Amino acid sequence: MNFLEERIIKDGVVKSNTILKVDSFLNHQIDIGLLDEIGKEFKKRFDGEPINKILTIEASGIGIACITALHFGVPMVFAKKSKTSNLGNDVYTAEVKSFTHNEVRTIIVSKDYLTENDHVLIVDDFLANGCALKGLISVCRQANATVEGIGIAVEKGFQNGGQIIRELGYRVESLAIVDSMNAKTGAVVFRDQDID
Amino acid sequence: MNFLEERIIKDGVVKSNTILKVDSFLNHQIDIGLLDEIGKEFKKRFDGEPINKILTIEASGIGIACITALHFGVPMVFAKKSKTSNLGNDVYTAEVKSFTHNEVRTIIVSKDYLTENDHVLIVDDFLANGCALKGLISVCRQANATVEGIGIAVEKGFQNGGQIIRELGYRVESLAIVDSMNAKTGAVVFRDQDID
Repeated sequence: MNFLEERIIKDGVVKSNTILKVDSFLNHQIDIGLLDEIGKEFKKRFDGEPINKILTIEASGIGIACITALHFGVPMVFAKKSKTSNLGNDVYTAEVKSFTHNEVRTIIVSKDYLTENDHVLIVDDFLANGCALKGLISVCRQANATVEGIGIAVEKGFQNGGQIIRELGYRVESLAIVDSMNAKTGAVVFRDQDID
Repeated sequence: MNFLEERIIKDGVVKSNTILKVDSFLNHQIDIGLLDEIGKEFKKRFDGEPINKILTIEASGIGIACITALHFGVPMVFAKKSKTSNLGNDVYTAEVKSFTHNEVRTIIVSKDYLTENDHVLIVDDFLANGCALKGLISVCRQANATVEGIGIAVEKGFQNGGQIIRELGYRVESLAIVDSMNAKTGAVVFRDQDID
């Protein structure tokens, strides 16, 4: 097990067979030392790629994206969420369904901050059905920016987002892939990734 | 002028006599080197205080709070925004009026992550009318946590939030205080703070 998998075993709470609570160290309260390790690990895994921008989506992705940007020494851009899709011509937009809030939100990135010159590492804390990720890939494609890779902290391997994105040819590095959870026993089964 | 004031002069855009756009380096796109300087400066100004937690509010405060937490070597907690005020007994809540979105949102901090043992540095990117800050102070008071100080990147000195919070006895360190702006000339006048 790597450092993140170990931490999930130690402090994650299995609320149901599909809901993993990491509020005490990754979301809401953030263990900054752990976040720094995550940023360092993304830098290690994507070392050599011509990444010049980190892209994420507000809100909970911002922390990981900032620390990752610090390790890469490049700017970070976060897509904003809006309730309206009528935002003028100076932004790229994509619609993202939120299962948590059961609504469709428009995500927005200014054309000033994402261009054809950008080689982007997309990062986020969670990957489940992949809706947020598909929106971020869409804005990169609209901008003719190159997606060099995707760095995820925790992937829910029992949902199909990771599979869909990988089948599209994107390189997705998830530090922990949860293949199953058991709410009765609290057990978490990680996918063996042959790393670390 | 300090590093942040210089950057505002260089890249900030005065949209009106009250609106300063810092989207290219502090919000939306984030210059991570600048953010690192801000975190370092907060550490310098609050050095010696027994700070063991950084508190902010989603979304745009998260970046500054993470980098500040890295410099202090302590955890970061961000208050979440919710549309509902009916959230159970395991959270502290406060109502915060957003002038940007013209609505009242409830901010939430879990009782697990803010306690009487916490000595808190509250940080945020902007201070204007102080509504968000008052909400964060309120949740600290509910938790019997000690607010050791408040670190702000850009304060709008022509709005009364900073004055109100300082009159309540809180130490507010704003790295740049904008006393006035002129949309016609693009001029920004900073308050002289005798620091650098």
